[in-house]
This record gives sequence, structure tokens and C-alpha cells, in this order.
Amino acid sequence: MIGIFDSGIGGLTVVRAVRSLLPEFNICYFGDTARTPYGTKSPETVTRYALENTRMLIERGARIIVVACNTASSVAFETLCKNFDLPIIEVISPAVEAALSDPRAKNIGIIGTRATIGSGIYEREIGKHSPEKKVFSIPCPLIVPLVEEGWQKRPETRMIIKKYLHPLKVRQIDTLILGCTHYPVVKDIIQSKIGKRVRVIDSSLAVVDSLARFLEKSPEIKARLGRGGTWTLMVSDVTEQFRKTAHMILNTKVELTHVRL
Amino acid sequence: MIGIFDSGIGGLTVVRAVRSLLPEFNICYFGDTARTPYGTKSPETVTRYALENTRMLIERGARIIVVACNTASSVAFETLCKNFDLPIIEVISPAVEAALSDPRAKNIGIIGTRATIGSGIYEREIGKHSPEKKVFSIPCPLIVPLVEEGWQKRPETRMIIKKYLHPLKVRQIDTLILGCTHYPVVKDIIQSKIGKRVRVIDSSLAVVDSLARFLEKSPEIKARLGRGGTWTLMVSDVTEQFRKTAHMILNTKVELTHVRL
Repeated sequence: MIGIFDSGIGGLTVVRAVRSLLPEFNICYFGDTARTPYGTKSPETVTRYALENTRMLIERGARIIVVACNTASSVAFETLCKNFDLPIIEVISPAVEAALSDPRAKNIGIIGTRATIGSGIYEREIGKHSPEKKVFSIPCPLIVPLVEEGWQKRPETRMIIKKYLHPLKVRQIDTLILGCTHYPVVKDIIQSKIGKRVRVIDSSLAVVDSLARFLEKSPEIKARLGRGGTWTLMVSDVTEQFRKTAHMILNTKVELTHVRL
Repeated sequence: MIGIFDSGIGGLTVVRAVRSLLPEFNICYFGDTARTPYGTKSPETVTRYALENTRMLIERGARIIVVACNTASSVAFETLCKNFDLPIIEVISPAVEAALSDPRAKNIGIIGTRATIGSGIYEREIGKHSPEKKVFSIPCPLIVPLVEEGWQKRPETRMIIKKYLHPLKVRQIDTLILGCTHYPVVKDIIQSKIGKRVRVIDSSLAVVDSLARFLEKSPEIKARLGRGGTWTLMVSDVTEQFRKTAHMILNTKVELTHVRL
């Protein structure tokens, strides 16, 4: 089984991508809705939550973990790798790889939560491979609550996104990494506000590409994953709002299992 | 010691009011910043958190508890009273009492988080005393993240508040209860958008009035409270953003103690 976790609803954009690109595998998703959001919390607290979530998914049969949350990937990935003996896929390096795959990328913008941007991980990852690139990053903390409220069609959301992207527009970025799994929900607005010429990298799609390539290279792990295309959605708090937004993202009615951590 | 808790930062408006109206008493505040916000979570989860917070404050010497959070007051107050043997003050009935103290109040509006409004507690409380009043309530979930981001002076915040208040304006309310301890931070905007003639009730001030009256009537409890005007701020997660917003609300530099629940 592929275990996927996020702070709440955002990681469902990764579930959507796994179901579309790797439909044969069983998925177990955990959204930590009782403690969401992560992006405004400290690295220590987010790391503690990521350890607990991973342990729970392993106990329920996960053979590979996808950290479908940029904040947890930014601050907790190394600690997770030290503590658990199974493959763990994070969202940062696949997005960086996708951004750098086009040699025309010179000025790269990154948007994410305050914790992700504050960690400086995207700058470090890009610098490792291509130190000549210019990187500009901006925290956009209000996009998460706007998406969770289902406000993706409201003019206020367009205004706030426009304001957040303004400094990146001024710097004439050519590539923009959506460094938060909530942001694909408002990808169209982001694309229209930053301009058509900018290549927008969706970290939710990039991580699933990376997962697919990893499984191709690791047949022994691939063989141990359950097949049948079943998927289980677990949450630490059950609310009507989560059900609604999950329905909107996955385009189907959802069954939620309550897990208390 | 007076123990006060909230989901995060909002309850500091109650701390500010206690320090101004009852400056001689020692205060111990707990903001549950590792699990904030409460207003988007289910009654079961919020009740569990409220029980844990209260237990911790009692262990640290609180002799009276102020639930400085409308969401926790709405869904957890009865359970708290059943589980603990000390006086517990909630924010709902003081705000209702303040609203009804003016006999001209006929159409009463209430704004709060989704959990508070969903609980229907304000309607029930007003109905108990004055069933002839008309009550209109609206959830305004985005005000909390806007305040926590420190966006109280931004035009987007004004627009969002205006949109939230529109249905209450159409119904020509004469009284508006701020049913969330975050809202006093944007009270001026709320007053200007709803109109000068509407009486705006600040639940943070109302609960401290109620606390003061309770202490006058209960000299044996008053005598057991520590004096000296010391105050301790405890949080379950320490972030720079909390420090900044706390500074803005309390108008002084703050020392934070990290408590892990």
C-alpha cells in the first residue's frame, strides 16, 4: 500500500494524481485535520506530527510513504529517513527537478507556506544542482485557508493571489514552483496572475512522476505494494467542510475514517 | 491564579482586558498554537482539546478558568463543568447579557467561527431570556487567519469583512455580537462596515466584566487567587508570528513558555 500524508486537505491533489497516473495501486491517505494547518507552525512541532503520521501509516500497512505536504517535506524529511526503514518520497526535489528540466529556466519563483519558505529548502536544492539560477521565494500563508474555505472562485482570492505574486512578477520570473499541495486548486488563477509565459510547476504532479520512476527502478518494492486500486481516506478530525472540499478535489463522494493520534 | 485559554492568539484580547480591569490578579494564559485553529474543527475534537487545556492550567495552579474562546465555550463548556470542580467562566452568556442589557436591541446579529455558529448556542441563549428577539448569525471563518497574519489594515480584509456582514446589514440588525475573541482586533473595520448605529458587543470585554462580578460575589475564591499582577504566557508551539501578533495585541514585548500537550 502507498501511504500518503498531509496536514489536511492539500495532499488530496497528490491522491488525485496517483489515481490518474498509477491507478492499480492501493492508497492509504491520512489528512491531519485535527492539527491542520502545518505551514504556520514551528519546524519542531511539524516534525513531531510527521513522525506520528508516518508511524501510523506504517502500522496500517504502508510499504512506501509519500510526504504530500511541502511544509513537512521541508522541515521533517531527514528526521523521517533516520527514524524509519522504508522508502520515503518528499515533494521538494521532484518539483525542483521539474523546474530545472527546462534549460531556459533562469529566474525561478517559489511560493509556499511561511514554514516552507522560511526553511530555505528550495533555494538550497536548486543551488545544489544549478547555482547560477536566480531564485525568489515568497510565503503566501492565506492561500491555504482560502482553499480550505472553498473560496477558489471569489474575487478576494484573486486579489490576494495577485498581491502575493506581484514581487515575483516584478522580478520577471520564467518559472514558478507551487510549493504547497493546496495551490494546484487555484492553479488557473496563479497562471493568469503571473502571466501565460511563466511555466508553472505543480509539485503534486511532480511528486507522483517521481514516485512512478522510483517504482520502476525498485521492482522488489513495487511487488510488495497491494493492488486493486482501493483507496482509504483517514483524517484525525471529521468535518463537513473537509468532506465538501475533498469531494471537489477528487470529483467523487468520499468515505472518511476517523483516526485519533 | 486566573487560568485563561484559547485556541491560539485570540484570547489575548481577554488577557488585555483582565490586565486593564483586574490588574492585581496573577494570570496564566495558554494558547494552543500547535493545534490552532479550533473554529474549523469538530465539537468532539475541540472538547478533547478544551479538557486537556483545562487540566494543564489546574495542574499549574489555576483556581478559576476563563474559556477565552467562543468555539470551546460553545461546544465544550458543559463537559468542562462536569469534569472539573472549580469555577469556569465562558464567553457566550456574558456577551448575550451585554447584548440584551439595552432594551432597544431587537434584531441581533452574531458573527463567529463555523463551529460556534454551527452550535446554535447564541440563538439558544438569547431565546432563553428573550424569545421575542430576532437573531441572525453568520460564520466568518477567514477573519481568524487574516488576524493571525496581521492583515488587519489590508484592503482585502476590509472587503472580506464587508462581504461577510452584508446579509446582516440587509436585515437591519441593531446589535452585533463579536462571537470570536479574534474579532476585537478588527472591531473598527466591523463597526464601519456594519454602520455606526449598530451597537457592537465585544465578547472579550463582556467576559472580563462577568469575571469581575463573579469575584465580587465569591470572596472565598477571590481570596485564593494569587496577587501581584504577574502574567505567564504559555503556548503549545512557539513561532515568531505568534510573538509579533501577541506584541501587537498586548502592546508590550512577550515572554513565551513552551508547553507540550
